[in-house]
Amino acid sequence: MSPRRVIGIDTGGTKLLGGVVDDDLAVRDRVHRLWRGGERQEVLDLIVDAVEEARAAAPDVAAVGFGIPSLVDRETGASAFSVHLPLDGVPFRDLMGERLGLPVFVDNDANLAALAEQRAGAAGGARRAVMLTLGTGIGGGVVVDGALERGAHGGGAELGHVVVDMDGPPCQGDCPGRGCLEVMASGTAIGREGAEAAARQSDSALGRELREGRAITGGLVTELAHDGDPAACGVLELIGERLGVGMVSIVNAFNPDVIVVGGGAIAGGELLLEPARRVVAERALPPSRDQVRIVPADFGEEAGMVGAAILALEEGRV
Amino acid sequence: MSPRRVIGIDTGGTKLLGGVVDDDLAVRDRVHRLWRGGERQEVLDLIVDAVEEARAAAPDVAAVGFGIPSLVDRETGASAFSVHLPLDGVPFRDLMGERLGLPVFVDNDANLAALAEQRAGAAGGARRAVMLTLGTGIGGGVVVDGALERGAHGGGAELGHVVVDMDGPPCQGDCPGRGCLEVMASGTAIGREGAEAAARQSDSALGRELREGRAITGGLVTELAHDGDPAACGVLELIGERLGVGMVSIVNAFNPDVIVVGGGAIAGGELLLEPARRVVAERALPPSRDQVRIVPADFGEEAGMVGAAILALEEGRV
Repeated sequence: MSPRRVIGIDTGGTKLLGGVVDDDLAVRDRVHRLWRGGERQEVLDLIVDAVEEARAAAPDVAAVGFGIPSLVDRETGASAFSVHLPLDGVPFRDLMGERLGLPVFVDNDANLAALAEQRAGAAGGARRAVMLTLGTGIGGGVVVDGALERGAHGGGAELGHVVVDMDGPPCQGDCPGRGCLEVMASGTAIGREGAEAAARQSDSALGRELREGRAITGGLVTELAHDGDPAACGVLELIGERLGVGMVSIVNAFNPDVIVVGGGAIAGGELLLEPARRVVAERALPPSRDQVRIVPADFGEEAGMVGAAILALEEGRV
Repeated sequence: MSPRRVIGIDTGGTKLLGGVVDDDLAVRDRVHRLWRGGERQEVLDLIVDAVEEARAAAPDVAAVGFGIPSLVDRETGASAFSVHLPLDGVPFRDLMGERLGLPVFVDNDANLAALAEQRAGAAGGARRAVMLTLGTGIGGGVVVDGALERGAHGGGAELGHVVVDMDGPPCQGDCPGRGCLEVMASGTAIGREGAEAAARQSDSALGRELREGRAITGGLVTELAHDGDPAACGVLELIGERLGVGMVSIVNAFNPDVIVVGGGAIAGGELLLEPARRVVAERALPPSRDQVRIVPADFGEEAGMVGAAILALEEGRV
C-alpha cells in the first residue's frame, strides 16, 4: 500500500509555497508562486494553478490543506479577514473544494506553522508552544496541550498585532493598529530599517548597495549581516530587540514552554534571536522568562506548508 | 441543613478584603486589613488574623480560599514570585493550612477575580473571558471554556505586564519590565499622572487639592473626575486610552468574548472604559474588536474575594 499523501499549500503575503507531503511528513514535488497582482481572482487562480501542478506530480493525493494569512472561520472555512491578501469574505474551503474536486482543509498560516513545529519540529512535545512567523508580516500561533488555540471566534493568536510601541508607526496592510510587533519587527521592517541604515552609513556594505541602486530588502540586509557588515548587523540587532519586547508580552501573558520563530526572515538566525533572548531575560517576569526556550523553526520557511499538510492528514482521518 | 460556607480572602498589593461566603455566593462578615509593614512575617500574621476574625463570626466554615498577588505553583500551592508582597518562595497553602487547621486553596488574585466574574458576574456564560484588575498594580486572568488558563507553569495571564510602550518607564515593584500596562494604567498610575496634572493645572480642583497639601491618589483623582473636574477627567481619559492599548494586544492575541475590568480603580467606571473602548475600536483587528464586550466587574472590588471562595467551594467539593 502506498503511503497516504496530501498537498500542503502555504500562501503568505508575497508568495505561495506548496508541496506533496507523505504521512511521514516527507515533502516532495514542491511548487512556488509569487503573487503577480493584487486582485482576488488572480490570487485564487494562482492558488488553483499551484495545486494542479503539485497534483500532476502526485495524482493519488487524498486532500489539500491550506494555510492562508487570514482570520479563518472554523465552521465554514471562510476567510473572514486578511491583512495581506484580498480574501475578505471569501468562502475559501467551499470554493477551493469545488474548483479542485478534493477534500479541502484550511486554517490560518501561522497557526499551521505552529502545528508543524509542535507535532514534529522545534516545539516537539511542548505543552504550550508559541510560534511567530516573520515574513512580510508577522503571524502567530499557539498550541496548548496539542490543540491550536484560536480564540472565541477564530481571531486569536494574532501575535503580530501585539502592540510594542503605543506611539509607534501605523501598522501594515489592513491592520488599523499602531506600533504592532509586525510593523516593528517583520521582514518588511528589516528592509525599511535597512534602507535607513544604508542612507546613514554610506561607507558600509549596505550603503554601497544603496548607492549602486539595489533595493534594500530584508533578505539583502540579512545576507550582508551574515557577511559581517556592521550596518546590517545593527539592523538585525535592533529588530531582534523589538522582537524581544513582543516576546516579553507573550511570555508574561502565556507562560509558554517554547517560542519558535519561523518565516522567511528567520534566515537572520542568531543575529535576531540572541538580542531577542537578551531582552526577554532582562524584562520578562521570573520565573516565566527562565522557563521559555526561544528557538528557530526546524521546518524553516516550510513550516506553514508542512502544517497545512498535517491539518489535512489529521482532519482528513476523522 | 445549613448551607456550605467558606472564607474567601483577597490579598492585594496594599490591603486585604475577606468575608464568609455561602455556596449561593452571598457574602457576609466582611473583614478588612491594610498592610502595616513590608515584612513577610507581619503580612502572614495579618492574613491569619483576618481569617480568624471571619471564622469567629462563622465557626462552621469548611475551608479557606486565598487569592494572592503571586505566581502560584499549582502543584504545591507555594507563592513562587510576587511583584507586590514579600511572599517569594513561601509555601503558602501548606503554611496557612497548618496555622489555620482548615483546608486551604490558593491561586493568583486576578485569576480568582476572573473566576468570580465568569461564574456569576459580568462575564457570565462567556466561553473566553479576560479579567483585568486595576489596583496598586494590574492583575490578569483568563477563563477559557470554564477553566482558568494558567500557562505552562502557572505564570500565564500576567496581563498587567503586557508591554504598551517599549521605551516607557520602569515597571513597578519587582517587575523588571519597562512600559508595562501596569506602570502605565494602574491605580498607582492614576495617582502619579494626577499629581502631574495637578501641578500643571493649578486652577483645577485637582490643583487646589495639591496646593492644600493633600496626597494626590488614584482614589482622589477618580472622585474629582466624577465631580466633573476637567483636569481629573483628563487623567482618567489618558489612563483609559493606555488601558485600551493594552486591550488591543489582548483582543488580537486572545480574541475574547469579554474583557471585565475590576479592582479598586474601576471606581472610575465609564470615565476609564469609554476611552479604552474607543482605542480598541480604532486599533484592534476586525472582527475580533467587534466581538468583545468591555465591561466593569459585577463584583467590583470584591471579585477576588468571591473568586477565592468559589475556588474553595469548587475544589473543596472534589
